[in-house]
Amino acid sequence: MALTYVSSKDLKARGRALEILRSKFGEIAKQILEGRTPIMVIKKRTLANTIFDREKGILRIGDESLRRSFLNAGEAKKFMQTVLMASIIYDTLVNNEYPTIRDLYYRGKHTIRYRKLPSKKVVEENTWDEQKESDSVIRDIEVFIDMLREELLILSKEKGKVVGNMRIRSGDDMIDLSKMGHGAYAIEPTPDFIEFVDIDAEYVLVIEKDAVFQQLHRAGFWKKYKVILVTSAGQPDRATRRFVRRLNEELGLPIYVLTDADPYGWYIYSVFKVGSITLSYESERLATPKSKFLGVSMVDIFGSKKLGKKPYLTEAERKNFIIKAKDKDIKRAKELMNYSWFRTKRWEHEIEIFLSKKAKLEIEALTSKGLRFLMDKYIPEKIETGDWID
Amino acid sequence: MALTYVSSKDLKARGRALEILRSKFGEIAKQILEGRTPIMVIKKRTLANTIFDREKGILRIGDESLRRSFLNAGEAKKFMQTVLMASIIYDTLVNNEYPTIRDLYYRGKHTIRYRKLPSKKVVEENTWDEQKESDSVIRDIEVFIDMLREELLILSKEKGKVVGNMRIRSGDDMIDLSKMGHGAYAIEPTPDFIEFVDIDAEYVLVIEKDAVFQQLHRAGFWKKYKVILVTSAGQPDRATRRFVRRLNEELGLPIYVLTDADPYGWYIYSVFKVGSITLSYESERLATPKSKFLGVSMVDIFGSKKLGKKPYLTEAERKNFIIKAKDKDIKRAKELMNYSWFRTKRWEHEIEIFLSKKAKLEIEALTSKGLRFLMDKYIPEKIETGDWID
Repeated sequence: MALTYVSSKDLKARGRALEILRSKFGEIAKQILEGRTPIMVIKKRTLANTIFDREKGILRIGDESLRRSFLNAGEAKKFMQTVLMASIIYDTLVNNEYPTIRDLYYRGKHTIRYRKLPSKKVVEENTWDEQKESDSVIRDIEVFIDMLREELLILSKEKGKVVGNMRIRSGDDMIDLSKMGHGAYAIEPTPDFIEFVDIDAEYVLVIEKDAVFQQLHRAGFWKKYKVILVTSAGQPDRATRRFVRRLNEELGLPIYVLTDADPYGWYIYSVFKVGSITLSYESERLATPKSKFLGVSMVDIFGSKKLGKKPYLTEAERKNFIIKAKDKDIKRAKELMNYSWFRTKRWEHEIEIFLSKKAKLEIEALTSKGLRFLMDKYIPEKIETGDWID
Repeated sequence: MALTYVSSKDLKARGRALEILRSKFGEIAKQILEGRTPIMVIKKRTLANTIFDREKGILRIGDESLRRSFLNAGEAKKFMQTVLMASIIYDTLVNNEYPTIRDLYYRGKHTIRYRKLPSKKVVEENTWDEQKESDSVIRDIEVFIDMLREELLILSKEKGKVVGNMRIRSGDDMIDLSKMGHGAYAIEPTPDFIEFVDIDAEYVLVIEKDAVFQQLHRAGFWKKYKVILVTSAGQPDRATRRFVRRLNEELGLPIYVLTDADPYGWYIYSVFKVGSITLSYESERLATPKSKFLGVSMVDIFGSKKLGKKPYLTEAERKNFIIKAKDKDIKRAKELMNYSWFRTKRWEHEIEIFLSKKAKLEIEALTSKGLRFLMDKYIPEKIETGDWID
């Protein structure tokens, strides 16, 4: 691959990734050269080894490890898959490639013929059959070498967008996020490579829905209120989560998340805040424990005598805007009640209202009260009065 | 809405949209003032009134019209829905808002109480119950006033991205699409407002998959081969289609579409080329009849004795990369065979190979042969030798 066309940041990152891969897998090679049984010790990515770290406020991987030995019949295949994948990733780094996890699946997929003892019969076995197998191996490698796949220049599709008074350096370019016209900046798959140059903003508003992002952007919301406006366009991908985390951690910006008022929206917030339940090893880098849920809350819709709060909607608006919750929404809400980070008084109140009213609401119901309502009343008022859920 | 924060382009567009709405719906008001029965004449958006215009190479709406009279019991509700929606859109234009079609649904949704003759019993009826009703009304208005909703400042979520040697003006900003770092420019929902400033490119490559777009972008493909790189991130939205059309029509750039080798990929190409079957009224503005299908073709996978072409894949690669077609893929392929724009010798050959092999392939299978293969052999070679399907 001609190097004139790739960014200097990528070249540097490759060097670092190659070094770590060599050092970690070099130990295994050394075990073999010294006649010892090669063994990998990798932290378990099981649900049982997923811990909610109350102090850090994130889901993280626990301390239980598994040993994967090459000379154990039950572990040999996984061991070989891991080494195969590591060698493929190593090659892509050397060759200046940018694989995706789908690529890596295809690259490693082939059939191995060998003689099975004691019968010496020739048998065929695939390195892996489905992508979930190779994906699992990639995750093991991420945990084993303590690097995220993005640092190995493994790319993925990306939905997150951003605009605001901020300049960043990405690749070898300087990008002014306040000069995107009616469009937006699509966040790169490797947001750790972004350099924050300068910024003039008071907080970050993360919006679940791209269409609402478009409306607020177009109406100049971020200019008027000095906001960095981000959309995850649905369930957030890794890059959007990492980008938001860095805005909070490195620039100290408060993060407010605005989603539909339903358990799906709550879960989006939860992924931003504490991380994904099934992929807890990522959270230490991707979760933003200080994120606040700005809304739309059940209390915004119905008000709350308990909290002395009036609703933002009239009775007539509720009649027209509310959507009846489905069984799967109810089920989801009950699941969320089991997560310790939803076991706060305020969240319990929220979920109780949902379960008693069996009602959900989309953000668009608020913009239909007038974009001015969302932009000049609802959002600024809630932020000013601290009316969010932690 | 404070006007200091919105672009001058939007303000101008609002003026024009208001004028057209006033003129078209003013005629209806005039009918009423003159004591005549108000009637709207709107072209039918039925499948039967959808024509494949061979000369233009696009699907378009035919000449059949429907009359919608206010004083006809069967037409009155639709008539009132149309006028209601037009008045809501009018208000959003006056108030400098940027509604989405979901917004408009909520804004118009309410219950009307009236006395039903002859019994004079009070009955309740909703303006509309589901969004598909209000969406249909919006489409009627687009056809009636011969404007796309984007010109009425109705926004939508947007997935399309672009990078390349090109500068555009969007809103009041100048944007250099060659200076997006590792990220990309997310195309605005109203691409007609974009001004093309200057460009240095030989063709446009439209890629179905965002992840493959990321890879080629990152490896500098568009720099090396002077390409405008666009991704639709799956089924293309209206803005991406309109943007691509403008690149072809106004700048004369050839458009090559790269999708997975399966009926779903073919249909994505078809939407770019001739338009969407159910929304033919859009095609005159959104379709790009000169688009070429670059690949991945069945001939690329299996070769073709008939065409004297060797495959790009070896037997071993086919074994590892090919995915077995599902029943719904087969069904889809047979449907496509009925569309007149797929009834060419080359397409028939393509679909025949698919139906006989019952095999599909993802673009990622090619990148797994090395990104260099996709970037420096497959794409440039096919373009140089004219190895595409029209």
